[in-house]
Amino acid sequence: MKKRYLLGSLLPIIAAALLVAATPPDAVLKKVRQYRQRHEHELLAEYTQLLSIPSVAADSAGLRRTATTIAAMMRQRGIAHVQLLGATTPGVPPAVFGEVRVPGATRTLVFYAHYDGQPVNAAQWAPGLSPFKPTLASGSLASGGQLLPPPAAGTPLNAEWRLYARGSSDDKGGVMTILAAYQALAQSGVKPTVNLKFFFEGEEEGGSPHLGELLGQHRDLLQSDLWIICDGPVHQSGRKQVVFGARGDVNVGLTVYGPKRPLHSGHYGNWAPNPAMALARLLGSMKDSTGRVTVAGFYDDVVPLTASEKDALHRVPNIDDDIRRELGFARPDGQGQSLVELINQPSLNINGMRSANVGPQAANVIPTIAEAELDLRLVLGNDYQRQIAKVVRHIERQGFFVTHAEPTDAERARYPHLIRVAPETGYNAQRTPLDLPLARSVVQAVQSTVAQPVVLLPTSGGSLPLYVFKQVLGATTITVPIANYDNNQHAENENIRLGNLWEGLETMAAVMTMK
Amino acid sequence: MKKRYLLGSLLPIIAAALLVAATPPDAVLKKVRQYRQRHEHELLAEYTQLLSIPSVAADSAGLRRTATTIAAMMRQRGIAHVQLLGATTPGVPPAVFGEVRVPGATRTLVFYAHYDGQPVNAAQWAPGLSPFKPTLASGSLASGGQLLPPPAAGTPLNAEWRLYARGSSDDKGGVMTILAAYQALAQSGVKPTVNLKFFFEGEEEGGSPHLGELLGQHRDLLQSDLWIICDGPVHQSGRKQVVFGARGDVNVGLTVYGPKRPLHSGHYGNWAPNPAMALARLLGSMKDSTGRVTVAGFYDDVVPLTASEKDALHRVPNIDDDIRRELGFARPDGQGQSLVELINQPSLNINGMRSANVGPQAANVIPTIAEAELDLRLVLGNDYQRQIAKVVRHIERQGFFVTHAEPTDAERARYPHLIRVAPETGYNAQRTPLDLPLARSVVQAVQSTVAQPVVLLPTSGGSLPLYVFKQVLGATTITVPIANYDNNQHAENENIRLGNLWEGLETMAAVMTMK
Repeated sequence: MKKRYLLGSLLPIIAAALLVAATPPDAVLKKVRQYRQRHEHELLAEYTQLLSIPSVAADSAGLRRTATTIAAMMRQRGIAHVQLLGATTPGVPPAVFGEVRVPGATRTLVFYAHYDGQPVNAAQWAPGLSPFKPTLASGSLASGGQLLPPPAAGTPLNAEWRLYARGSSDDKGGVMTILAAYQALAQSGVKPTVNLKFFFEGEEEGGSPHLGELLGQHRDLLQSDLWIICDGPVHQSGRKQVVFGARGDVNVGLTVYGPKRPLHSGHYGNWAPNPAMALARLLGSMKDSTGRVTVAGFYDDVVPLTASEKDALHRVPNIDDDIRRELGFARPDGQGQSLVELINQPSLNINGMRSANVGPQAANVIPTIAEAELDLRLVLGNDYQRQIAKVVRHIERQGFFVTHAEPTDAERARYPHLIRVAPETGYNAQRTPLDLPLARSVVQAVQSTVAQPVVLLPTSGGSLPLYVFKQVLGATTITVPIANYDNNQHAENENIRLGNLWEGLETMAAVMTMK
Repeated sequence: MKKRYLLGSLLPIIAAALLVAATPPDAVLKKVRQYRQRHEHELLAEYTQLLSIPSVAADSAGLRRTATTIAAMMRQRGIAHVQLLGATTPGVPPAVFGEVRVPGATRTLVFYAHYDGQPVNAAQWAPGLSPFKPTLASGSLASGGQLLPPPAAGTPLNAEWRLYARGSSDDKGGVMTILAAYQALAQSGVKPTVNLKFFFEGEEEGGSPHLGELLGQHRDLLQSDLWIICDGPVHQSGRKQVVFGARGDVNVGLTVYGPKRPLHSGHYGNWAPNPAMALARLLGSMKDSTGRVTVAGFYDDVVPLTASEKDALHRVPNIDDDIRRELGFARPDGQGQSLVELINQPSLNINGMRSANVGPQAANVIPTIAEAELDLRLVLGNDYQRQIAKVVRHIERQGFFVTHAEPTDAERARYPHLIRVAPETGYNAQRTPLDLPLARSVVQAVQSTVAQPVVLLPTSGGSLPLYVFKQVLGATTITVPIANYDNNQHAENENIRLGNLWEGLETMAAVMTMK
């Protein structure tokens, strides 16, 4: 691979930067913006290289290559103590660490992003796109954007352009933005006001199963006053937002068993039980027609919002109708509650469902198995193990015998309804109080980069392992997202709007120089 | 492709055979069996070549190549008037026709089989197998059979061996058996008692959408007293069977629509409606827990069985418990009714179901669509259009707006539940009375080849376009199947037991020399 890095050997310049006096917020914004405008082609080229490296759980070599590439990007920016933090458990993708000690700074912020992406099914991407061949488009393909050739040198990049690739928004975008922000400050001679640490994880999309182990092993290295989590989208209104918590998350795989071999649907139809039908009936039993989960006790345990959290929710712009129209559906779930109200409740989602084939490959068969992948999101007070137990109890109440392995012949002979339940590793929700002094500083910093009021969200609908930081390190976390909301993260055609990369750079630079 | 045909130029021998006197049944059986035993290697080699040609609806060139290969096989056997019967509609796979006029014969039988197979998903086949690379195994792979190398010349072939390939049982097996039976008779100097016509269709697995057109265009050529349909399995007990009818069949594709683009299941979960859940609820509403279809009027219109049909049903060996154990499930659908009772009722089966991804490709998303393929089987009295209309009405009653195209933005904005219903071409059921004189002759012929009583089945659970023969030609049809019941027809790992090929050859030869 041909690597193109921005900074030849800039260590002397960076060292000089650290000696200059504190710069007022407006001046910082102006400087980093100018720096970006002068270097956006190089930044885009470097980001394109980073996105070209496959980084999904199924490709551990690709993940490792991504980690070493990020480490090299950090070293070239003069970041100190760059290292791959490995877990004791073998085969775990390493986290990438580095730091910048700022003379006179009394507070330390760790900037977190993750370099792994959600699994990909390349066949589902739009024609001309491929998950690890980053491609520019003139806008969102869903709204008529057209694919573009690589931009000619010297021509300004349009902020509305999109860069399509797995991880472009979630969350190599976080890695790139953080590193570009530090670089812009250093190259512009602006001194950060806080000590900076960097921690880029490689297992977030797999539920961060070894994050606790990693944090525990590197407790001293990771000491800080606050973690800044750069992941997720800005508000759908386009406003920047600061998010104080995240839902917890756990996936549960379900496999319903039918006959051992696929049967002719004519010769055996009506008689041999169909696992797709059994799975459909089971899934259908989990929600009512308004989308409310019918699993007993599903909404118990929820810790109510505080007065300031409720207040913040009321101030969030309501864009529900606009998004609903854009997404093309007539009625949301949730009996009239708003999106922000609903993400403060636990959820149950079918991520995927499959039995035999559909479309041109469909054959007249009774399938042998039917599978579904559930996604349970948790809010403060829920415990992921307890939430799974409730779902399992529900499944049993529908008449299923629940196993955690392939059913044995004896089980097949005994139980009319057989299901394998395979919970993955998960974690609980976490919320940071809105009124901590450090939180106010972060909000102020973000606000200093834009005129429109920054949205304060008590919790994100998405998940981050914030609970693990709290449990293992006692750490406080605040999330500062940068991606466009319509980024198709987790799905085919993931993309980032260039404007969001550049605005994110300004946001991160502001936090690094916060009061 | 290297072709190896059995008969160099055998026309003189065949012509001689037609002059000999009628041979008694026992002697016919002995002669064709000896012939097969001496030539089984060559027959297997020829069949393997035929199975190597891809013949699925998605590959029209492969279908055409299969048809011309079969025509060549027929010409080499000295069959007269071999021709490809094309439909007026372009692109339709041709039927292959040929005939043998027997001096003195007063009755004409058309032997029908189809050379197209069900769609394939090669990835689902067992390791070492590929749909169009025929492979021998020492027995059913599902029961511990092992893959075998091609057999050494001169060693006898074990009747328990299986040949794995798409179409091996359904229904190139029918084509091969019919042609091999005629060859064995001709080569053994046995004169058929009836005029023979051959009609091999290429669109059966697609619901025979142009069969009526083809039959109508070649009405004179196809005049006969009876059609012998060679398709489907012998009885699960291993006994030969004669089947007097078939269920009708129609497939219906369903697509439920969710948000226009896939959404992060955290940021939008609880709020954006999930099409997989909507589809699950809909499918789950179509049957009760005993497998009875809850679609209003679904069991109406059914023509009751006659006294002789009921009597025949009572004589069918009940193997339900044995098969249930073998297939590994505890309780069949149908509230205690037997398999043969249940196949005399209309059915609704989920052939396949899919939304987004499961397993390693599953991502935390709210999918954009959820799809299912339904298979409706029909019995005498049902009309396939009427049966579809009942299902559509049921879907509407569940609150869906039914469309037959991609929904428009206006439809998306208006209807909370949107579904696309795509019915394919289908046909109705057909049953031939058990007591027709010709039917008795066929049963007697089949019975003459085995000691165990032949099973008489008023209808097959599977489907054949018998209704079309009746409608267009006024033709009578009787089905004489030859495949093993555990052949995975319609699914991955389709296979035929060699013993069934050889016993089928004897069956067909007996029918060709029936009294």
